[in-house]
Amino acid sequence: MSDFWSPFVKNLVPYVPGEQPKIANLVKLNTNENPYGPSPQVISAIQAELNDSLRLYPDPDGERLKQAIAKHYSVTAEHVFVGNGSDEVLAHIFHGLFQHEGPLLFPDISYSFYPVYCGLYGIPFEAIPLNDEFQIQVEDYQRPNAGIIFPNPNAPTGCLLALDAIEALLKANQRSVVVVDEAYIDFGGESAIALVNRYPNLLVTQTLSKSRSLAGLRVGLAVGHPRLIEALERIKNSFNSFPLDRLALAGATAAFEDQDYFEKTCQAVIESRACLVADLQALGFDVLPSAANFVFARHPHYVGEELAAALRERHVLVRHFKRPRIDSFLRITIGTPEQNAALVAALKDYGVHQ
Amino acid sequence: MSDFWSPFVKNLVPYVPGEQPKIANLVKLNTNENPYGPSPQVISAIQAELNDSLRLYPDPDGERLKQAIAKHYSVTAEHVFVGNGSDEVLAHIFHGLFQHEGPLLFPDISYSFYPVYCGLYGIPFEAIPLNDEFQIQVEDYQRPNAGIIFPNPNAPTGCLLALDAIEALLKANQRSVVVVDEAYIDFGGESAIALVNRYPNLLVTQTLSKSRSLAGLRVGLAVGHPRLIEALERIKNSFNSFPLDRLALAGATAAFEDQDYFEKTCQAVIESRACLVADLQALGFDVLPSAANFVFARHPHYVGEELAAALRERHVLVRHFKRPRIDSFLRITIGTPEQNAALVAALKDYGVHQ
Repeated sequence: MSDFWSPFVKNLVPYVPGEQPKIANLVKLNTNENPYGPSPQVISAIQAELNDSLRLYPDPDGERLKQAIAKHYSVTAEHVFVGNGSDEVLAHIFHGLFQHEGPLLFPDISYSFYPVYCGLYGIPFEAIPLNDEFQIQVEDYQRPNAGIIFPNPNAPTGCLLALDAIEALLKANQRSVVVVDEAYIDFGGESAIALVNRYPNLLVTQTLSKSRSLAGLRVGLAVGHPRLIEALERIKNSFNSFPLDRLALAGATAAFEDQDYFEKTCQAVIESRACLVADLQALGFDVLPSAANFVFARHPHYVGEELAAALRERHVLVRHFKRPRIDSFLRITIGTPEQNAALVAALKDYGVHQ
Repeated sequence: MSDFWSPFVKNLVPYVPGEQPKIANLVKLNTNENPYGPSPQVISAIQAELNDSLRLYPDPDGERLKQAIAKHYSVTAEHVFVGNGSDEVLAHIFHGLFQHEGPLLFPDISYSFYPVYCGLYGIPFEAIPLNDEFQIQVEDYQRPNAGIIFPNPNAPTGCLLALDAIEALLKANQRSVVVVDEAYIDFGGESAIALVNRYPNLLVTQTLSKSRSLAGLRVGLAVGHPRLIEALERIKNSFNSFPLDRLALAGATAAFEDQDYFEKTCQAVIESRACLVADLQALGFDVLPSAANFVFARHPHYVGEELAAALRERHVLVRHFKRPRIDSFLRITIGTPEQNAALVAALKDYGVHQ
């Protein structure tokens, strides 16, 4: 039977996303969703599109959305690519820009979808170890490569690489495409989009799933030199002419137009993060410095997997990765102050202390 | 600069969808959209999801939607795959099931995205000529192949292949995956889904863009043996965990639950088609027998491209393909009776007569 499959399919190791349980009254801190809903303007914009016009195809180029993103980042619409979530955008990047002879480089501890894309498109890669403080060392990326990708802040560590370090990496790798995956940048970092006009090999990806509270709408984007964007458009137009539906286009455009709400909710998450870090440290946790909407924390006296299971029993979901170097850690999404308090209470209930 | 591109990208010839003009008061008969809006139950179901829950990821497996489709077709959810429009579903099929040594076979006059997918995934193909009546001859597909795909009814001809002919083709090709692309089946054909339990090499694709009036929502599906579905799930989970957003999942599920509205609108289109065919024939057009929501017609005294341009000047958009064998034809979407009358009036205004 599996003779019907294209041969590479049987060796694929698909990505496993964090659980989306259908249980009510759960404190869900496992998939880095925003604890606040989307902007009311997003809801209104979708509402305005929710009518008979759904019978018509959407704009295949997402022109209005590209304009809104371009305006936000002071680039032109020709610098912008949009897709059905940043995972689709990343898939097209791997396919259209990383399928070369040499290896792609990314950190050993990083977004675990990267090696999956490599499997999907037959891309050789080398995983470059983070240092002992779980930081990216840019000098480690000065080796032959056919592309570099890393999240910034990194996932699942939350650690930020400063913009001058990214610039040093770009200068040392001018013949490779460097992708900075900024899913979490709005929670404490400075976007590398500021550099795209100076580095034609730089591509920056973002998502509306985190800071724009739209994980349920599936919109992602990339910003870079128009020649890099052109490769992505060619792939997209050879894959699916209409990746974004009418409602997603309307909602995503509105999300970029409501700057106030965006800033207010990001700030709330940043403040909650500071409180949660203090609470976890008071319980004896070692917490990596986070610029994201999650923290990565381990406790010297507890096994990560057991802690995650104990929390689950108390209706609090966090994410644990059974992987070398990080299996003592929990990745905990920043919730509302009430959700964070519920997490801390559950840890105390389990007996966690310094 | 284009050294940054994966080498195959520069040889890609992307698909060009029908125009989505931003002009008001156009009679838009160029992209086979349904002239009627979606079911009111679809609008209500999306409305019910339009709230703060958009901050949360959707169900990655689209389980409720799969159940609704499975129920409609009397199969199990394990026989069903869903994606972001049938174009995405087709892309995964080409990638996951057609990437073999031998050639893929499809009709020379067919959905023009097929050779584009072949370019995207490096798949060799042979285009098998339709006969002089623009019909698929199943005996032409008894040659070495690593897969077969064709639309039924075919596009852009609208011609239907009967189910017993499809069964003959399946019997003669039991070592290859046979994909029947049923984008237009609900306007006059019988679905090959009735055969999936007997032919483990059969995969049937459909879209909600035509008969379900949801081109703007981007939902497509495939039905086949669970082993074929498994290949698609592996690809999907290595590409994008969440291809369908919360609103699309809710709307698509409701569309399958409102059988009455579906039947009523399909019937209205079928009736309008009969009237339009009669009107076109009265003007001297040669119209291929159509089982779709469009007709493919040519006039012995007029050049196809010029007719399309004359209609456009009169604010009526139809589709013309500048391709061998069919460049004398127009593909005209069935509109409302009023839209169809506007088309006929525009043709008369241009002077078209027997």
